Amino acid sequence: MNLIRVKEIIRKALNEDIGAEDLTTEALVPVDHRSSAVLLAKQPGVIAGLPVVDLVFKELDPACQLTRLKPEGAEVTKGTIVARITGPTRAILTGERVALNLLQRMSGIATITRELVKKLDGLSCRVLDTRKTTPGLRVLEKYAVRVGGGTNHRFGLSHGVMLKDNHIAMAGSLAKAVSLVRERVGHMVQIEVEADTLEQVREALSLDVDAILLDNMDLDTLRAAVKLIDGRVWTEASGGITPETVRSIAETGVNGVSLGWLTHSVQALDISLDFEMETGDQ
Amino acid sequence: MNLIRVKEIIRKALNEDIGAEDLTTEALVPVDHRSSAVLLAKQPGVIAGLPVVDLVFKELDPACQLTRLKPEGAEVTKGTIVARITGPTRAILTGERVALNLLQRMSGIATITRELVKKLDGLSCRVLDTRKTTPGLRVLEKYAVRVGGGTNHRFGLSHGVMLKDNHIAMAGSLAKAVSLVRERVGHMVQIEVEADTLEQVREALSLDVDAILLDNMDLDTLRAAVKLIDGRVWTEASGGITPETVRSIAETGVNGVSLGWLTHSVQALDISLDFEMETGDQ
Amino acid sequence: MNLIRVKEIIRKALNEDIGAEDLTTEALVPVDHRSSAVLLAKQPGVIAGLPVVDLVFKELDPACQLTRLKPEGAEVTKGTIVARITGPTRAILTGERVALNLLQRMSGIATITRELVKKLDGLSCRVLDTRKTTPGLRVLEKYAVRVGGGTNHRFGLSHGVMLKDNHIAMAGSLAKAVSLVRERVGHMVQIEVEADTLEQVREALSLDVDAILLDNMDLDTLRAAVKLIDGRVWTEASGGITPETVRSIAETGVNGVSLGWLTHSVQALDISLDFEMETGDQ
Amino acid sequence: MNLIRVKEIIRKALNEDIGAEDLTTEALVPVDHRSSAVLLAKQPGVIAGLPVVDLVFKELDPACQLTRLKPEGAEVTKGTIVARITGPTRAILTGERVALNLLQRMSGIATITRELVKKLDGLSCRVLDTRKTTPGLRVLEKYAVRVGGGTNHRFGLSHGVMLKDNHIAMAGSLAKAVSLVRERVGHMVQIEVEADTLEQVREALSLDVDAILLDNMDLDTLRAAVKLIDGRVWTEASGGITPETVRSIAETGVNGVSLGWLTHSVQALDISLDFEMETGDQ
Amino acid sequence: MNLIRVKEIIRKALNEDIGAEDLTTEALVPVDHRSSAVLLAKQPGVIAGLPVVDLVFKELDPACQLTRLKPEGAEVTKGTIVARITGPTRAILTGERVALNLLQRMSGIATITRELVKKLDGLSCRVLDTRKTTPGLRVLEKYAVRVGGGTNHRFGLSHGVMLKDNHIAMAGSLAKAVSLVRERVGHMVQIEVEADTLEQVREALSLDVDAILLDNMDLDTLRAAVKLIDGRVWTEASGGITPETVRSIAETGVNGVSLGWLTHSVQALDISLDFEMETGDQ
Amino acid sequence: MNLIRVKEIIRKALNEDIGAEDLTTEALVPVDHRSSAVLLAKQPGVIAGLPVVDLVFKELDPACQLTRLKPEGAEVTKGTIVARITGPTRAILTGERVALNLLQRMSGIATITRELVKKLDGLSCRVLDTRKTTPGLRVLEKYAVRVGGGTNHRFGLSHGVMLKDNHIAMAGSLAKAVSLVRERVGHMVQIEVEADTLEQVREALSLDVDAILLDNMDLDTLRAAVKLIDGRVWTEASGGITPETVRSIAETGVNGVSLGWLTHSVQALDISLDFEMETGDQ
Repeated sequence: MNLIRVKEIIRKALNEDIGAEDLTTEALVPVDHRSSAVLLAKQPGVIAGLPVVDLVFKELDPACQLTRLKPEGAEVTKGTIVARITGPTRAILTGERVALNLLQRMSGIATITRELVKKLDGLSCRVLDTRKTTPGLRVLEKYAVRVGGGTNHRFGLSHGVMLKDNHIAMAGSLAKAVSLVRERVGHMVQIEVEADTLEQVREALSLDVDAILLDNMDLDTLRAAVKLIDGRVWTEASGGITPETVRSIAETGVNGVSLGWLTHSVQALDISLDFEMETGDQ
Repeated sequence: MNLIRVKEIIRKALNEDIGAEDLTTEALVPVDHRSSAVLLAKQPGVIAGLPVVDLVFKELDPACQLTRLKPEGAEVTKGTIVARITGPTRAILTGERVALNLLQRMSGIATITRELVKKLDGLSCRVLDTRKTTPGLRVLEKYAVRVGGGTNHRFGLSHGVMLKDNHIAMAGSLAKAVSLVRERVGHMVQIEVEADTLEQVREALSLDVDAILLDNMDLDTLRAAVKLIDGRVWTEASGGITPETVRSIAETGVNGVSLGWLTHSVQALDISLDFEMETGDQ
Repeated sequence: MNLIRVKEIIRKALNEDIGAEDLTTEALVPVDHRSSAVLLAKQPGVIAGLPVVDLVFKELDPACQLTRLKPEGAEVTKGTIVARITGPTRAILTGERVALNLLQRMSGIATITRELVKKLDGLSCRVLDTRKTTPGLRVLEKYAVRVGGGTNHRFGLSHGVMLKDNHIAMAGSLAKAVSLVRERVGHMVQIEVEADTLEQVREALSLDVDAILLDNMDLDTLRAAVKLIDGRVWTEASGGITPETVRSIAETGVNGVSLGWLTHSVQALDISLDFEMETGDQ
Repeated sequence: MNLIRVKEIIRKALNEDIGAEDLTTEALVPVDHRSSAVLLAKQPGVIAGLPVVDLVFKELDPACQLTRLKPEGAEVTKGTIVARITGPTRAILTGERVALNLLQRMSGIATITRELVKKLDGLSCRVLDTRKTTPGLRVLEKYAVRVGGGTNHRFGLSHGVMLKDNHIAMAGSLAKAVSLVRERVGHMVQIEVEADTLEQVREALSLDVDAILLDNMDLDTLRAAVKLIDGRVWTEASGGITPETVRSIAETGVNGVSLGWLTHSVQALDISLDFEMETGDQ
Repeated sequence: MNLIRVKEIIRKALNEDIGAEDLTTEALVPVDHRSSAVLLAKQPGVIAGLPVVDLVFKELDPACQLTRLKPEGAEVTKGTIVARITGPTRAILTGERVALNLLQRMSGIATITRELVKKLDGLSCRVLDTRKTTPGLRVLEKYAVRVGGGTNHRFGLSHGVMLKDNHIAMAGSLAKAVSLVRERVGHMVQIEVEADTLEQVREALSLDVDAILLDNMDLDTLRAAVKLIDGRVWTEASGGITPETVRSIAETGVNGVSLGWLTHSVQALDISLDFEMETGDQ
Repeated sequence: MNLIRVKEIIRKALNEDIGAEDLTTEALVPVDHRSSAVLLAKQPGVIAGLPVVDLVFKELDPACQLTRLKPEGAEVTKGTIVARITGPTRAILTGERVALNLLQRMSGIATITRELVKKLDGLSCRVLDTRKTTPGLRVLEKYAVRVGGGTNHRFGLSHGVMLKDNHIAMAGSLAKAVSLVRERVGHMVQIEVEADTLEQVREALSLDVDAILLDNMDLDTLRAAVKLIDGRVWTEASGGITPETVRSIAETGVNGVSLGWLTHSVQALDISLDFEMETGDQ
């Protein structure tokens, strides 16, 4: 992750939550009081975001220290102590909510991604994210997908070309669209085409494209498409894939499956920050 | 909503997605081509975020116009056309993903909030959000809760005082904590205390507090707490409340129920942007 | 104070003053020259802003150190040495003006606030600020009021509701306005109503409001209003209050007095930064 | 003024005051309600800041219009209607405080500056500001000084060289300091030297300097200094100058007088925003 | 180009140049004076940047209008009038320098790129830029390369993988490096390897790479490399290529030539802004 | 240089290049791997920008250290090792391109400036830059000119007045323009007038101006102008000056020569960053 960008996200988030000041903490906690607290998993899952949590507290006070008791990406059970934060009590109390909001979301993404990856065990099919991420947090969410074992699709609109219906209509035909794009972009840019039918797959295969997104096809059509493509370009199934259907879809032989809900409908992983408070006043 | 802040969120989100440029759109769409597209609900729910969608497209090109076909907050069915956007095709294509990412999330929040509010029909119990919002998007998510019929809890750490275990421990006692805080804050600031037991409720009632959060209590304890409090302060139940349990909890007589998952585990509402493209070239 | 926001204010201020570079300092002072300087009160008053001064110099060079010789909030006499700054000479010279501009303003606010608080000695009446602060510096100015012993009124438009003539006219009646607002805001938001006459006080009392601002009333009317209200809601006198009139107004029994000029017409406290320069070259 | 910078100041100020949202206005005022309001002088003075007020309301809603009834810089009496603002009621109510905070401060500066300029009527002595401005608002405050008839001293540390005690000590001697600076800066940069004594004036005159600041000198010394300098360099009296002493100081023949309190201890000019509200709903 | 980002660049540039205010223009030009001016080529070349110039003036005053008399990308001769700007005179005078600084640089890049492209006429070899762009202006400079007829190499470090000596050393071997990277990145990311020798080319060919950069090879080695690669991966020659050598290098059969000096050592194209001033006062 | 501004430039540049993340480095280099690398001059020139390079790497990781082996401003030969950077390998690899892009540009400016300064050896004529700098990088480029031995002309539009044809036309006459400007600006602001003919020089001399820019005059006219001016105001020759003509122009007796191409058409100095890698893993 670009940490300069991550720090900007953190500053925005802290400013949003703190506003003018943390009324409660400033009224009750002496400036020089220090504490220790732990991050405790309250349900099983995959931990993602510890470097981000570290930066949240350091942004509030560079004297904060996060010690990992479990590595980033670890699968934890309910009750696992994930990390310990020590530092000025004010910083820990004031940063708690933002830190947890980020950690729970990122761990939620890593957890479901890992679950899907495991379902595809033994198959060479990748679990892919999409651009359906939370506005402003894409760099964190795509990172969490990787921690979960998934693979990132393009980061944004300048990281690759995806030709959809509307683009093709605008160009007149897929052939025209591919030609116009290929003319304009450099060799580091891949071109992927969305296909809904075998007919469209055939058309795409006749052109200079690098990948085909097989959109909302049933299993039979998917299998036929994979056979037709025969490894000549990269293939990706997309549309309405669930944890229940993912393995059967992967078994059609596609190179990857992409799922928007991985990031647009995150189930936060329940993690709490509990004070140990043994450090006392200094 | 503070629209200046909303526009900042939108600019961040567009920059994140576009990066250097929208390779596909710039290669295929002439600068002066115009289109019309509709926002189409693909599942039933409550629409929230139309003013935000409008600003997304206007940020890319002030010539874009959004016409609402359903009012903000409307309950729509699958297939409902929610709004029409007309304007330069480049802006519509480039802004589509960010607009949908925001609208789907906000509508998801409004939908589940409305569902909960309906479950409490006939009771004078409010559905409340928390500070467990997506970092950077709180202003949008709290707005969506209101569109859904819910009520906003404090916006952030400077908008009210919430005394939790750690704060109380820091002060030595709840009485000391309340006294320290009351001394420091003005009359526009409310003080709420978290209580896990009836004993703590009794202690809070003996002090100058404005609200009590009844945390993770079972129904019997909740009822006893409400009786004990007898309307002297505002009451809020919190902790593990689900759509299934919310009505029985509300029936205990609490003034509100607060739910973190309303915003931390959003189920996006499926809405698509479909081109009509009848406007053609200019 | 939210220190992330304070640092943003400081960076803005330094950029404003330095521009491209500090021509004088860069021409004359070697990069590695170090100095020591003191903050000297040149008139009696209350010191507020030492943590801000510390951050100004640290922003220019983290090697700068501020040592407090008087605590924040101390009442100092002419000639008192308030603090010592040691560090790279360039940073001290370049930051001097911004540091003093902030410290003098904040100390000026704390000084007059303390003076007013003392005038109310023995009465339980608070000295309140308003939203008439210097644009961009509210977080610093409200902090200075607290250092002086005053109490903060709402921080801004999202921190509480204040119903004035125009709002009431817009709603049709005060009753309608209160009802509309109460419906919309949560339990952490207080509603205050501005009243010019006893009639308006009576109307407000019949409604669900938390505080009444008694605006520009003479002493007799104030006394009558306080009697009428009889402690049922919080009361605040406002409008044209001066150091001469503040005690008699407070003696009417209002809970607080609010004064815009506390922050909109600040008399800076004269403080200078004097080099001791004993540290010499390194 | 650099309006890009002014707009940044305005956005910061509005965000500071509005925060998440203007609770009161959003609850009471329909989105499409429009109003008309006037800026009313409640005490005599000089108006400065109308273009800034215009931008405040336009930032909230471009549909707002400000019509000047008095020109910028006009001397108004109590009761003068200065300008009329028409537009969406929400924007007018939400922007009112920020607009007035800026206008009152700027008009306060222009008023006292004009008063001083008038006291110097018939003399060719300029009223100068300093760098003792409110952090973040220098561009507005220096503009207000000009509106009042005063003249701007250097805008900041890169706009000219001012050699003070500490700089001279750092260089070893004034001669050394002047030589080092002259070597480094270009021909568009002026060098001014601070002198406390006639001896220092003599030394400065022997060197390549453009202006001398005569610091805290009594009238006799000032007269002697002016005579000594004899028009060879620009002269400026500074230090403890009051409205009472300014004319006698100017009569010594100095080219200008500079006063920090012009901007560091502003007395806001009382101006209110009163709704006329004749426009009604649309 | 992402115009949101371009506008940010323009605001930064205008703030940098204007600072507090444009002293000369504000002193001399009435606010409502309007003018017309033309952009005049003072040497032959390719014009790039007209949309940027338009935004510069619009940023200062939305009333400014740029009319293109030559299309973006046109080859102009000395004396060609490229475009006309009409609008408030203040905006035109204040924005002139920033507009020209951007236009001259972009046109300089487009001009040399076009020259190189022409030298390769008849060959299917692309002229590529690099990441050796001016910090902060990459989006403009890569656009100018396209206007000149060149092709963009990767936009930045997240837009593709380039394996150089240091990366390979870090991984232990090229094979290890390719494998590690391929494991981590998605299918939209291309992997290019830098090769200095035929041996390295052979090694790269045995691995899963998409492109090979042939670094600083002489013509014979280049020819041998191209033959060896035989179209299996994309090839790019780089290192010390000049306008004199570019055709012979391209004739070796490489798919592209990349040149850092295209953007790191720009020769600005001489273009002036000349007032016509026929519009007069309004 | 204002280092706060320099750091902002650096953050912008790093964000521009890194985007979401440095794909290559993150895939290959362990977080705790450390390296050592040197900056190596690949052609002779003057080094400028070492403090900037230091800040680039420190921004990515504060553990990075730059040790200068040659002082800023040193003239180096091909093969000279200029500085050594040690620190986390990831930071060095990720920051390499931005660091070099800045250092090469700044050193290129310093190199050509030094060359020109040497050509004027023995003459008291300064080499001046202009406002024709790269948008966003002026503070760095003007600094590089100073490192090369040149002198900075005004930093921007608020740092001095330059009266050109259009300004004079706007005012009606040069006399009117000078009078209007002198009325408005303070004593720290210099007024320079552009003159194309001896007639214009004569007119300027009769007015209260501080400097005359002799624009595009041939040697004879320049000599005549210098004689006419006779040291009464500062003189600057400008327009089409090349390394070949600069000395003869300077010998006319002008005080300075200004050259736009010093910064608008920079020839980057070739410097590379080479890993030594002896530090190994920690």
